[in-house]
Amino acid sequence: MSQKTWGGRFSGGTDSRVEQFTESISFDRRLYRHDIIGSQAHARMLAEVGLLTPAEADQIVSALDEIGAQIDAGKMEFSVSLEDIHTHIERALIAKLGDTGRKLHTARSRNDQVVTDLKLWTRDAIDELDGLLTELQRAFVHSAEREWGVIIPGYTHLQRAQPVLASHYFLAYVEKFQRDRERLADCRTRVNVLPLGAAALAGTSLPIDRDSVRAKLGFESVARNSLDVSSDRDFALEFVFVLSLVATHLSGWAEEWVIWSTTEFNFLDLPDAFCTGSSIMPHKKNPDVLELTRGKSGRVIGALQQLFVLVKGLPLAYNRDLQEDKTAIFDAFDTVAGCLAVAAPLVQQTKLRREVIASRLDAGFLDATTLMEALIARGVPMRSAHEAVGNLVRECEQRKCRLADLPDAQFDATAPGHGAEVKASLGVSNAIDAFTSYGSTARTEVEKQLAGWKARLGM
Amino acid sequence: MSQKTWGGRFSGGTDSRVEQFTESISFDRRLYRHDIIGSQAHARMLAEVGLLTPAEADQIVSALDEIGAQIDAGKMEFSVSLEDIHTHIERALIAKLGDTGRKLHTARSRNDQVVTDLKLWTRDAIDELDGLLTELQRAFVHSAEREWGVIIPGYTHLQRAQPVLASHYFLAYVEKFQRDRERLADCRTRVNVLPLGAAALAGTSLPIDRDSVRAKLGFESVARNSLDVSSDRDFALEFVFVLSLVATHLSGWAEEWVIWSTTEFNFLDLPDAFCTGSSIMPHKKNPDVLELTRGKSGRVIGALQQLFVLVKGLPLAYNRDLQEDKTAIFDAFDTVAGCLAVAAPLVQQTKLRREVIASRLDAGFLDATTLMEALIARGVPMRSAHEAVGNLVRECEQRKCRLADLPDAQFDATAPGHGAEVKASLGVSNAIDAFTSYGSTARTEVEKQLAGWKARLGM
Amino acid sequence: MSQKTWGGRFSGGTDSRVEQFTESISFDRRLYRHDIIGSQAHARMLAEVGLLTPAEADQIVSALDEIGAQIDAGKMEFSVSLEDIHTHIERALIAKLGDTGRKLHTARSRNDQVVTDLKLWTRDAIDELDGLLTELQRAFVHSAEREWGVIIPGYTHLQRAQPVLASHYFLAYVEKFQRDRERLADCRTRVNVLPLGAAALAGTSLPIDRDSVRAKLGFESVARNSLDVSSDRDFALEFVFVLSLVATHLSGWAEEWVIWSTTEFNFLDLPDAFCTGSSIMPHKKNPDVLELTRGKSGRVIGALQQLFVLVKGLPLAYNRDLQEDKTAIFDAFDTVAGCLAVAAPLVQQTKLRREVIASRLDAGFLDATTLMEALIARGVPMRSAHEAVGNLVRECEQRKCRLADLPDAQFDATAPGHGAEVKASLGVSNAIDAFTSYGSTARTEVEKQLAGWKARLGM
Amino acid sequence: MSQKTWGGRFSGGTDSRVEQFTESISFDRRLYRHDIIGSQAHARMLAEVGLLTPAEADQIVSALDEIGAQIDAGKMEFSVSLEDIHTHIERALIAKLGDTGRKLHTARSRNDQVVTDLKLWTRDAIDELDGLLTELQRAFVHSAEREWGVIIPGYTHLQRAQPVLASHYFLAYVEKFQRDRERLADCRTRVNVLPLGAAALAGTSLPIDRDSVRAKLGFESVARNSLDVSSDRDFALEFVFVLSLVATHLSGWAEEWVIWSTTEFNFLDLPDAFCTGSSIMPHKKNPDVLELTRGKSGRVIGALQQLFVLVKGLPLAYNRDLQEDKTAIFDAFDTVAGCLAVAAPLVQQTKLRREVIASRLDAGFLDATTLMEALIARGVPMRSAHEAVGNLVRECEQRKCRLADLPDAQFDATAPGHGAEVKASLGVSNAIDAFTSYGSTARTEVEKQLAGWKARLGM
Repeated sequence: MSQKTWGGRFSGGTDSRVEQFTESISFDRRLYRHDIIGSQAHARMLAEVGLLTPAEADQIVSALDEIGAQIDAGKMEFSVSLEDIHTHIERALIAKLGDTGRKLHTARSRNDQVVTDLKLWTRDAIDELDGLLTELQRAFVHSAEREWGVIIPGYTHLQRAQPVLASHYFLAYVEKFQRDRERLADCRTRVNVLPLGAAALAGTSLPIDRDSVRAKLGFESVARNSLDVSSDRDFALEFVFVLSLVATHLSGWAEEWVIWSTTEFNFLDLPDAFCTGSSIMPHKKNPDVLELTRGKSGRVIGALQQLFVLVKGLPLAYNRDLQEDKTAIFDAFDTVAGCLAVAAPLVQQTKLRREVIASRLDAGFLDATTLMEALIARGVPMRSAHEAVGNLVRECEQRKCRLADLPDAQFDATAPGHGAEVKASLGVSNAIDAFTSYGSTARTEVEKQLAGWKARLGM
Repeated sequence: MSQKTWGGRFSGGTDSRVEQFTESISFDRRLYRHDIIGSQAHARMLAEVGLLTPAEADQIVSALDEIGAQIDAGKMEFSVSLEDIHTHIERALIAKLGDTGRKLHTARSRNDQVVTDLKLWTRDAIDELDGLLTELQRAFVHSAEREWGVIIPGYTHLQRAQPVLASHYFLAYVEKFQRDRERLADCRTRVNVLPLGAAALAGTSLPIDRDSVRAKLGFESVARNSLDVSSDRDFALEFVFVLSLVATHLSGWAEEWVIWSTTEFNFLDLPDAFCTGSSIMPHKKNPDVLELTRGKSGRVIGALQQLFVLVKGLPLAYNRDLQEDKTAIFDAFDTVAGCLAVAAPLVQQTKLRREVIASRLDAGFLDATTLMEALIARGVPMRSAHEAVGNLVRECEQRKCRLADLPDAQFDATAPGHGAEVKASLGVSNAIDAFTSYGSTARTEVEKQLAGWKARLGM
Repeated sequence: MSQKTWGGRFSGGTDSRVEQFTESISFDRRLYRHDIIGSQAHARMLAEVGLLTPAEADQIVSALDEIGAQIDAGKMEFSVSLEDIHTHIERALIAKLGDTGRKLHTARSRNDQVVTDLKLWTRDAIDELDGLLTELQRAFVHSAEREWGVIIPGYTHLQRAQPVLASHYFLAYVEKFQRDRERLADCRTRVNVLPLGAAALAGTSLPIDRDSVRAKLGFESVARNSLDVSSDRDFALEFVFVLSLVATHLSGWAEEWVIWSTTEFNFLDLPDAFCTGSSIMPHKKNPDVLELTRGKSGRVIGALQQLFVLVKGLPLAYNRDLQEDKTAIFDAFDTVAGCLAVAAPLVQQTKLRREVIASRLDAGFLDATTLMEALIARGVPMRSAHEAVGNLVRECEQRKCRLADLPDAQFDATAPGHGAEVKASLGVSNAIDAFTSYGSTARTEVEKQLAGWKARLGM
Repeated sequence: MSQKTWGGRFSGGTDSRVEQFTESISFDRRLYRHDIIGSQAHARMLAEVGLLTPAEADQIVSALDEIGAQIDAGKMEFSVSLEDIHTHIERALIAKLGDTGRKLHTARSRNDQVVTDLKLWTRDAIDELDGLLTELQRAFVHSAEREWGVIIPGYTHLQRAQPVLASHYFLAYVEKFQRDRERLADCRTRVNVLPLGAAALAGTSLPIDRDSVRAKLGFESVARNSLDVSSDRDFALEFVFVLSLVATHLSGWAEEWVIWSTTEFNFLDLPDAFCTGSSIMPHKKNPDVLELTRGKSGRVIGALQQLFVLVKGLPLAYNRDLQEDKTAIFDAFDTVAGCLAVAAPLVQQTKLRREVIASRLDAGFLDATTLMEALIARGVPMRSAHEAVGNLVRECEQRKCRLADLPDAQFDATAPGHGAEVKASLGVSNAIDAFTSYGSTARTEVEKQLAGWKARLGM
């Protein structure tokens, strides 16, 4: 008798190249715990509805526990001739229990079994990611606290724009990762719908109780249409999309810190333990963790593209192409989880070079916009104020000086009767003090946000 | 004085090739209504906090209405030297109101203005898509009703698997598009956070009231961090991801119907009005709408990849790269909306060729799994039942007959004492009658689902 | 002393999470043979220019041979603390030879070393692929010979269009894979430019002889600009692009054969050894190899996208992001090589179901275009002939008959004076006989192409 | 009679939504010149083989010239009911010539016509790109000449690595764009194979002479297999791949210059005419052209992914999905051509801030590797020399000094007997002078490369 789950109608064996080409055991073994949990819930339910005796169900549950322990201990021998983790476990069960083992797959197909396993795995993965994202948020909040009061240049177009509090900067990333967590939570809701019981594509004539399985496995609801279940990988694409967005957020942060680590910027003191050197250039200290984090975004985005190409143009219901979903999902998850695990301590341990930053805050006209707003507040129409300050900046560039270095007369000419006040608004520290709006870099506003985040993140 | 919004600090004009290269007016003119609505809310708020007089705000609101009407009527002349729709509208306002017009941009940057416009547009686009998706769902439900009772082959691996009700088949797509609608709704929540008031990247020193603007524009909340706002395009990526998944669902359906329209399958009667012919082959009637729908998935998925490449590795805050988001979003939306608009009537008007389908239901052993389940229900362990039926199928293939054509003795041998009953379970109609499980193709189950969908979709 | 190649300037050790995150030994060990060959050529050259003594070079070459044999035998212990294959091999060398080993990396950086190894590997991979593609071409040519004379329906829009010789069909794929081979050859030319000697990014002050290394390693030329070398991964992208196109060609073929394997088409007799069954449905015989081949295109295209995202926006010269190139290249190559290895025997062993195909050739008006051309040949303007035959087809559809079944009068009306001749041109076999143009499905033309391919492929 | 080219067999009209959805005239009108040229060659050949009279061919050629002039002058009215440019032109021809016009489409299908037009267009596009790339190369060579002798820091990991000549840096980009030109040339060879005459998918029974058409249109060879022609879009994917690689090269250069334009780096003097300002921040001068160039890479890469998704899983031969190729190709070409057109003058006009760069060359230990090589040249094993210099750098970091500032004793200790010589090798200028290897930044080597490029580029 064939060791496959489907030998009956076949007259010859499978070509060994085909076994090698179609196997999934090399990667889906990772699902073994979820396969066992799912099978145990299924067996219990089969006993409830009379398709197994209670004793049979007990035997199956126990034997599956033993098989799980065996795999935990690295004692299961994997073989491509047994195709996948599901066959390995079922064959091991039959080896232990004989005919009782042969009953486990009652009213179940690999089609619904695989996707149930994968959803259980994805649900765990989402929860793990949420934890990792939270740790990274805490690291940014920690930095926001540690660097309280430090002013840094804010950039647009990578040009110096306006001064911001370092704490405001760190909290910007907390916002981004918070949206990622919300997207993960939304995705989890859609993951958490039970596929099992859809069988191959049409349901079954046997009297199963899907709601019982749902409750045992902690799913929130039961999928309503068996054809849909058999063909659906939406949750996998959504999950990998969210991972891609996390990876993209990390890539932007990494890029920024690579730039901030240059000799020219010199904003950061990256810990030696997070850098590496050069095989030829003895003086190098390179921000490799940041660079790899930036580059790894490609891997996750590539996995998303893989999945889209995979499902493009597939008719209902299950097609074997879908087996290829798992390498994409696993790789995307491992990549992002790996980046997050190293990003959090790196953020936590990296300090701003405060003196270097402070010593150059005068460069780049960071106070020009505040000056313009001071003019507006005194009644100058916005566009006229913009034009006037633009002219002052041009003057400074020619003189190679700061705005504050221009003669008083220039300010009197620009804001008749208010020259002195307006000039007094200049300087980066004054600029920070001037901010007031909700969500701005004003000290009081950032303080409120920081307090809010500490509360939300249980710090 | 420069017609640009930023001429003051520049000594020379812009190179005309650069104007051409950097312009966005050729595509962002599409945002004009949202720009006007956003500016009107901003002006009202500026008056509330004293940065404008009430009369100034009234003038601005009226003038903007006039400008909107002018654009509606196609009377605005667009020029690349004015860069974008925001500059066009502001310049028109200043031309009408002089210094009062020059005040509109108080406490606002194009950075927060653009993203506010784009979020207002996206919110509308989501609502429009939700309507189009609902129409398509209704078309599928309509078909499920019209084709009630028709049995079709269900496929896995494009091989005949088990029989299903045509209605069950149509409802599978309703499920997929329902998940798309849920993802759109989740996306809408994240779109619906007000960016305006973040100004360039740091907020403002002027006493604005962001919550007032929020209420006026119907946003649910106000963005908490100005640096985040200035750099964030998450909502655009999420929106285009959801569009990509819709397009992918459409591609699978289109593929299936292309196959079903072949001479060989011949399941469908596509209306002439939805097909086209060949310039050389006079007999051709081609399912072009389906093919283009299938192919257009590439365009939407390509737009998503465009956006990921775009934002990869960008440091905070706004970078001009982000201007490129709009063509991707607009094109992805137009493509999907166009597909949906033609898919709904096509689904509605396409009928199953019932006689053709029925005449071949005996082919492909669609009843084999029900037979196996009949054995299981009589106590045969599942794996043994599978093996036994597999052998019967092999026998049939050699004899070139149906399972029901095998001699009774074969069934008695397989299910001693139950041969006759078990054989009586054969046939596609019996197979359909046998199904019982929740979510299966059982008549009663599909009936319940159909009723549920009619209620949910207001039919 | 640090086991790293760069410990000197670092005060502390590397965080173990960072070692784990930045390691490449888990995948670049695959390059060990190429690393050894490259190092041996480098050592020989160092001796030629006096940077090593001849004895030192001999020692290094021998020791590297021993290390290679050790790795062949699975006796090298790999450790993430030694980062990559280059460090493993260099450390093993130093362990064997002490100071002599410490000289190997003279005038070399990992930057140029890695890319040299990768180019050597890619060159081998291209040659292997060319062989696999040739085998697949031969399998198609073999089928073209075996099925000589068989007529099949040709499709456009998956609708029956015109009859073609099966041999013509098989040769169409030979053309596609030939273009892939040409693209591979073009890519190989660009791969085959020596990077070694560019050192880190600027070249070296030591008197190396790059042309000598070039000759030893079989490169065609030497790269001209060290900064370019240090930053260039063009060849990797080009290689993965060509792989993506191969995978796409395979996906189309697989799709077609999935369709041809349906109960409805039933064109193919897929060998049991290349199919698999269902865990629940005992009658199923599924074309899994074809489906996986179709799906795996996503993996290769995803790898290409990964590489584009990876290199997007990287400044000169080497950045650590580039380490991520290898997983993409290896995975894309393995995937395509795996598909090709199983595609060739599958094509070779699959036979057409000639009777089934022949029995339905009358369906679908495959002779309509030939009829039209018969009219044109008798002076009817093409557009009028098209219209006339279109009307005849409409008539047939109403009567549910073939064109040949229409009354003679219809043909006399359409082609006054030529009705009988024109009618005599009908039928699929006549249609095939009528073709004449170069590249067409005419028997003589296909015969010539087949002979040409047999010669070119050495069959 | 229908205005379509295929009305005969259809009983009703086309749904207007379907006309809108399936039309291509809105974008393929761009092919009108190539369509006319192709049709003229086709008509001449038809006369040569007797399918047209010479007079008919003359009439058709003249009328097509008139139609071309009409379109040039903007006087053709385009309508979606006429589907595409091919139908527009053929209908206009019939309107002019009646039955003679009805003969033009003899022995031709839109399938081979479209791809012929598109190949003619692509061939022109390749030639235009080659010109634009050459201009950009010349701009870099021009900069290499203008900035001769200037030393800049070379970077790896964006950390200061070794000094390089600015000219060496500029020539690195010339190399990259040269490879792009070579890839374009290889692509052109594959484009330049005539499809016309493949007709719909099978060739034709009419006595056409494809080689005559080939010669008239300047193709290098004639496609050998009609089924392949009908389904092939390889050339389009290859073309867009090459465009993607050009765009990626541009993105890296743009990123680098964005960084070099910061206040912190301040390496570049970007012309005002290539920068833009801020609507709110009056002091800003932003490198928008560079940012948009960087971002537009996403658009081109997205187009490539669109094409891959498009062709994935398509069976032979022509499918209507392929109509979607044109928007991708056109958009990718326009985007890259637009970037190149503005990049060349930007490169040409941007000057290095030599004093700023020079004033900071002492930072970052740019001479450390040369120091190490000086030790190696004096017999210190490479790994020991690396370790020794690494320790010196650590010492400098603690003392906050340059290598040259360390006491002589340190050098004597490192290189007993050679301390003074070795110390004398320090300094960036000495480092540049020390380089010797082929392809390095040595003055003589760069001089040779520069001369070579000037010759190759006709400068």
